[in-house]
Amino acid sequence: MPQRHFTKSERTAFYDVIGARRDIRHFIPGATIQPDTLARLLAAAHAGPSVGLMQPWRFVRITDGDVRRRLHAVVEEERVRTAHALGERSDEFMRLKVEGVLDCAELLVVGLCDDRERHIFGRRTMPAMDLASVACAIENLWLAARAENLGMGWVSIFSPADVAAILSMPPGAQPVAMLCLGPAQSFPDRPLLEIEQWTTARPLDDFVSENRWA
Amino acid sequence: MPQRHFTKSERTAFYDVIGARRDIRHFIPGATIQPDTLARLLAAAHAGPSVGLMQPWRFVRITDGDVRRRLHAVVEEERVRTAHALGERSDEFMRLKVEGVLDCAELLVVGLCDDRERHIFGRRTMPAMDLASVACAIENLWLAARAENLGMGWVSIFSPADVAAILSMPPGAQPVAMLCLGPAQSFPDRPLLEIEQWTTARPLDDFVSENRWA
Repeated sequence: MPQRHFTKSERTAFYDVIGARRDIRHFIPGATIQPDTLARLLAAAHAGPSVGLMQPWRFVRITDGDVRRRLHAVVEEERVRTAHALGERSDEFMRLKVEGVLDCAELLVVGLCDDRERHIFGRRTMPAMDLASVACAIENLWLAARAENLGMGWVSIFSPADVAAILSMPPGAQPVAMLCLGPAQSFPDRPLLEIEQWTTARPLDDFVSENRWA
Repeated sequence: MPQRHFTKSERTAFYDVIGARRDIRHFIPGATIQPDTLARLLAAAHAGPSVGLMQPWRFVRITDGDVRRRLHAVVEEERVRTAHALGERSDEFMRLKVEGVLDCAELLVVGLCDDRERHIFGRRTMPAMDLASVACAIENLWLAARAENLGMGWVSIFSPADVAAILSMPPGAQPVAMLCLGPAQSFPDRPLLEIEQWTTARPLDDFVSENRWA
């Protein structure tokens, strides 16, 4: 669709998806995602931009209950380490629900592929642009999930080396996300970390300046 | 809109935005973006997810022609260095149009803020999750631009230190993108790097496996 023109009502629906997307940790246990729906979500991710068109992403779908439980154990281990690192807020952190790995309908691990050094276009000075590309792909998937009325949570509380070992990832590859996907118990009207008073989001005006950093 | 339910036709429009988004380098010179449109684009970015709700992004709008030309010179310098690093493909690279910094209606520099070390939630083992959050915000903006029938290009061909110096960024902050925005000459049906035979995109099936890396 080279010259697709979007109308105001289409734009409104699009912005509603942007505004209604949440990081979901509360899923409906035992639910499933239809195969064609999952295929659309992955296609949305794969339609994401990538620096120099390098397509640095890989998606591992976890269907084996044992593998899922081992991944969950890795998250649980890092959750305790994070709590320890947070010092005086450690108890408060441990009371938060930070992941839905065991309850979500589908679990995907997203990783950066190996053999990325040969891709110089757009990343000679900033090699981490490959991670930026993977993140854009994940955001596409996240928004697509919301448009499908499904929840998604991006879990980054894990040791990358441990996840790499469980999934037999080659040297140079690295996991960047566990994506929990499925029917959500609800879509809160604000970020959960605000509702639970972990932190307060600041308004856009605090983040915009003109011609120089301010 | 806590429980906003999206219909099939809304979903179709949403997927059309995902599919019609392109990395645009050819803009209509002299065009402008209405202030309320630019405000919607920035709001879409600001609605993006961020690890631990840290909101690590900053947006610098470039309205001063002199600053824009200095930023363009930094891109041009890195373009030549990238060509040199590419060796036998250097001439081919130099023939590609890789940015529309001077011609686009609006130029934004997006950066990671300083003082990020204190944010441990979700990034104790993977500190670069802050970059992932900024990338998600940029993808929101990119899709929103397409929904507004505007083009966007993410330029990452620059020395971060040079851009930081031009914009007086504090230690610890770092630029990750120059975003070129505005009415596009066209929206190609495939990535420009494919059309110009720089590279060939691979199909999704090459990137998906089950339960283990493959």
